[in-house]
Amino acid sequence: MRILLVGAAGKLGAAVHETLVNRGHSIVTVGRSSGDLRLDITDPAQITAAYDRAGDIDAVASAAGDVPYKPVVEMMPADYLSAFNGKVAGQLELVRQGTARIAERGSFTLITGVLAEQPIPTGSAAGMANGAVEAFVRSAAIEIAPQRVNAVSPTIFTESVADYGDFFPGVEPVDLERVASAYVRSIEGAQTGQVYPVR
Amino acid sequence: MRILLVGAAGKLGAAVHETLVNRGHSIVTVGRSSGDLRLDITDPAQITAAYDRAGDIDAVASAAGDVPYKPVVEMMPADYLSAFNGKVAGQLELVRQGTARIAERGSFTLITGVLAEQPIPTGSAAGMANGAVEAFVRSAAIEIAPQRVNAVSPTIFTESVADYGDFFPGVEPVDLERVASAYVRSIEGAQTGQVYPVR
Repeated sequence: MRILLVGAAGKLGAAVHETLVNRGHSIVTVGRSSGDLRLDITDPAQITAAYDRAGDIDAVASAAGDVPYKPVVEMMPADYLSAFNGKVAGQLELVRQGTARIAERGSFTLITGVLAEQPIPTGSAAGMANGAVEAFVRSAAIEIAPQRVNAVSPTIFTESVADYGDFFPGVEPVDLERVASAYVRSIEGAQTGQVYPVR
Repeated sequence: MRILLVGAAGKLGAAVHETLVNRGHSIVTVGRSSGDLRLDITDPAQITAAYDRAGDIDAVASAAGDVPYKPVVEMMPADYLSAFNGKVAGQLELVRQGTARIAERGSFTLITGVLAEQPIPTGSAAGMANGAVEAFVRSAAIEIAPQRVNAVSPTIFTESVADYGDFFPGVEPVDLERVASAYVRSIEGAQTGQVYPVR
């Protein structure tokens, strides 16, 4: 398949890239400051331009999402709005615009995360954004068929334990390779409206 | 208890009001255009003003939330933003500001809804907003203890079947009285971080 991979330069995006290439797929990489196409996912006009330039696409995979981390009492309206813009709105717009662009039986795979279900202190904006994305996936799936949309919900990556492990005491990390497999499951499988936990 | 009830004039708010009064609570009603206090929940400064004028509060109950309904392919970024502002941001800000205002063991009860889990066509913004609120509740609960925060997630009300029943084919509606009971459960109970489905 020809797959548009948004957030390809990040730790997760690079792992998804490698896995998809190893599965024989052709990848169009998209990133804010690197990749085949440049895209700030918070700008709907840039999403349109990226689809215009991407050509025929069978699947869209997103590994993009920025949210702030702060105690809930310090989490100002601008912080939650930043999380909404950084992880929710752009991914939703990738799907909305993509329905008219990708293959008739194409798929969208979005990124969410464990904090929607298993919170950590300072993680309320991440949790909120993840919960929004997951519920959107269930909603959009029933409208866009036969196109499909799923989400991948990893816990902390083994490769991120050095940076963030202290925020996840006692949580078993997962290798990025396993997270990338969940993208394969979404893209090559037939389900829709699913959230695939990787724990 | 002395309870701040936001959205008191709506169908749900009126039912919650009646039930809480019958349980012996004292209610400060808050609404956009009626009630003891006036509040546009999308304006953080008005939330501050409402708390300033409300006096001692033991619990905050919200029955307020507006979202647009449209097919997902017509749901523009401005529509999802409107849902975020109308149902998510204001309720989150009620909690954030409220932690410093309400009783040490006070509680917040927010409104979400069935569309986070069981979607209907045109309901993707509602689903997204509900998923955001529910994940926030789980996150905030672990930070604000011994204060508590829960959400009530009703399906379609019996009293709304005439207006919206066609969007919920085969779904058993619930009486507003049962939904109001879930607010009592949250306010008078001891749990936190819960989403109480009323189905």
